Amino acid sequence: MAGSPESKLQLVQRHIRAFPDFPKKGILFRDICPLLKDPAALTAVIDLFEEQVRKNYQQVDLIVGLDARGFLFGPLLAQRLGIGFVLVRKKGKLPGTTVSVAYELEYGKAEAEIQEDAVSPGQKVLLIDDLLATGGTLFAACELMKKRKAEVLGCMVVIELKELNGVEKIKPHSLFSLLQY
Amino acid sequence: MAGSPESKLQLVQRHIRAFPDFPKKGILFRDICPLLKDPAALTAVIDLFEEQVRKNYQQVDLIVGLDARGFLFGPLLAQRLGIGFVLVRKKGKLPGTTVSVAYELEYGKAEAEIQEDAVSPGQKVLLIDDLLATGGTLFAACELMKKRKAEVLGCMVVIELKELNGVEKIKPHSLFSLLQY
Repeated sequence: MAGSPESKLQLVQRHIRAFPDFPKKGILFRDICPLLKDPAALTAVIDLFEEQVRKNYQQVDLIVGLDARGFLFGPLLAQRLGIGFVLVRKKGKLPGTTVSVAYELEYGKAEAEIQEDAVSPGQKVLLIDDLLATGGTLFAACELMKKRKAEVLGCMVVIELKELNGVEKIKPHSLFSLLQY
Repeated sequence: MAGSPESKLQLVQRHIRAFPDFPKKGILFRDICPLLKDPAALTAVIDLFEEQVRKNYQQVDLIVGLDARGFLFGPLLAQRLGIGFVLVRKKGKLPGTTVSVAYELEYGKAEAEIQEDAVSPGQKVLLIDDLLATGGTLFAACELMKKRKAEVLGCMVVIELKELNGVEKIKPHSLFSLLQY
């Protein structure tokens, strides 16, 4: 495509790989490792997120990222915006007084947790993760924000797996995804 | 201290909290959450790491970060340097052909893993994590690099717990830590 420069989104897309049957048969795993390894592609991800925030979520106070791959993108976006980053972790990882929410996994349950002083009532937050599948973890993170009376402006992910319909699960919160499969 | 501006290191130190008896009795847990929540303090961490790299590790090709809290700092440093970031994960999280190394935990064992194509023979890498305790995980990450014939220039952490002597465990590799307790 001589003469047609690659868009930021194309650059991002070109650095995501698919692995069939991982972590188990029938699952097509979207691998973001090449994205992290290419500095220009990673910059493009943050550029695109930042653009969206400046357009639609200018009032944001904090970026809230999910354990563990949300940690790869959240601090980068927060630094770009000059705001703070808050960690949602798997239960038992955070010291001090915490708030937790249980959510369903395919088999069994898990719990997501924040420190009680991580967000204050009325603060406006954006949630970030690498990927939206069924939306269980992101939904739990939204519930954590509700418990602390923070306002969720929206959720942002690099990749949305459309057929799993996680977007329904996190309603009424909005989703912004860079790539849809 | 009127007239004496706070140094970057003081700013970082002021955003680390201690929690006694977490995750269990007798452990004083150093909590980095306030550091992530304060954009200026987080910028200071990356400034100090960058300074060290430009002084002592100019030839670095890749930043290698440890699951999960190394993910908070690694991509920021890699972006600042304009180089790529590689993930060391707990076993079973990475698709494709992987290389793994077992290491000792206090009770039992764990395995650290990278994708085989994450680093190439001869590449010069810096390992990053939030904290050095006994050094088990960082040692395993060094071994992973050795298996792939990559050259470890050094290890960088925000916090070093001196009395656990992790610095011995990772020898002959050098350690750079911002804060020592």
